[in-house]
Amino acid sequence: MSRWEPDAASRLMKAATELFDEQGYDATTVAEIAERAGLTKRTFFRHYADKREVLFNGSGQLERCWLEGIEAAPADAEPLAAVAAGFDPVAEMFAERHAFARVRSRIVQANPELQERELIKLHKLAGVVKGALLRRGVPEHAATLAAHVGLAVFSVAFGHWVEQNDPARLRALFDESLAQMRSVTSA
Amino acid sequence: MSRWEPDAASRLMKAATELFDEQGYDATTVAEIAERAGLTKRTFFRHYADKREVLFNGSGQLERCWLEGIEAAPADAEPLAAVAAGFDPVAEMFAERHAFARVRSRIVQANPELQERELIKLHKLAGVVKGALLRRGVPEHAATLAAHVGLAVFSVAFGHWVEQNDPARLRALFDESLAQMRSVTSA
Repeated sequence: MSRWEPDAASRLMKAATELFDEQGYDATTVAEIAERAGLTKRTFFRHYADKREVLFNGSGQLERCWLEGIEAAPADAEPLAAVAAGFDPVAEMFAERHAFARVRSRIVQANPELQERELIKLHKLAGVVKGALLRRGVPEHAATLAAHVGLAVFSVAFGHWVEQNDPARLRALFDESLAQMRSVTSA
Repeated sequence: MSRWEPDAASRLMKAATELFDEQGYDATTVAEIAERAGLTKRTFFRHYADKREVLFNGSGQLERCWLEGIEAAPADAEPLAAVAAGFDPVAEMFAERHAFARVRSRIVQANPELQERELIKLHKLAGVVKGALLRRGVPEHAATLAAHVGLAVFSVAFGHWVEQNDPARLRALFDESLAQMRSVTSA
């Protein structure tokens, strides 16, 4: 085995999600993941701090994509429209990861500790979205509300997307979820 | 010390929150809480499973109050109006607990583990609110969105309330937060 494994991170991710899905997250060890990937534990730890990071590694990229979309929104966009401007790059980012997202969702749903971690990740993401709105001059409370609405819209659409067999539909599901949110909150 | 302590639970709660606030949550032991309250550790454990429960003990009552309000809403109320119908009994429940809520909020904000616990509590509460909407015949996604909007409205108003010195204002803050939410989400 060569020391330089160009696709080691993705092989380890594939092996880990297969094992988590087959035998459960708790029952899977880093040694098993490395073995399934044909790599060493040492290589695993060069790419991931622990087995949980395999599942949460993408959250930084999700944050950056969403921010990029908000920052590109017109300066006069309403707060929720600015939040929704992040749905374009986010949908693009996920388009090629539908299979992974489906398995990942199944693994997280099966494990209370991972569900908590997911909740904390999404809360952190809401904080990042809120921060971007504050930088646009949106007042504190409006920014908090718009960020949490954005996260709820995201979560409902994403949950729908991983249940379906249509990788390209995420952008449309964001729009549907947003329209439904506007309908639910109209007086 | 008599075995029967009629106000033991509230004395322990007072002692615990004082100590958490003075010296930090992590640094405080059950023995210190019992001592400050003039009670035994044994009495503490008759009332609370652990020191964290002193701070999270009220979440069942919050859930019941909110549910009661939703269930009393007119059958034809829109989902978010039904969620907001819970704000009446919830505000009433908190009216006499402003001092406790303020200290509790300070303690939770100072401790990442408690912040995570609070997040999980609020997520569970959103699930309870969603369940009440489903029982009213609200479709799945609308129920999820309305419940999360309700929780965001609640959290913003509550956060504002604990910063202020006006215990009776919570109901009005819920209305303000709800109006702001409707304004943020109007197209």
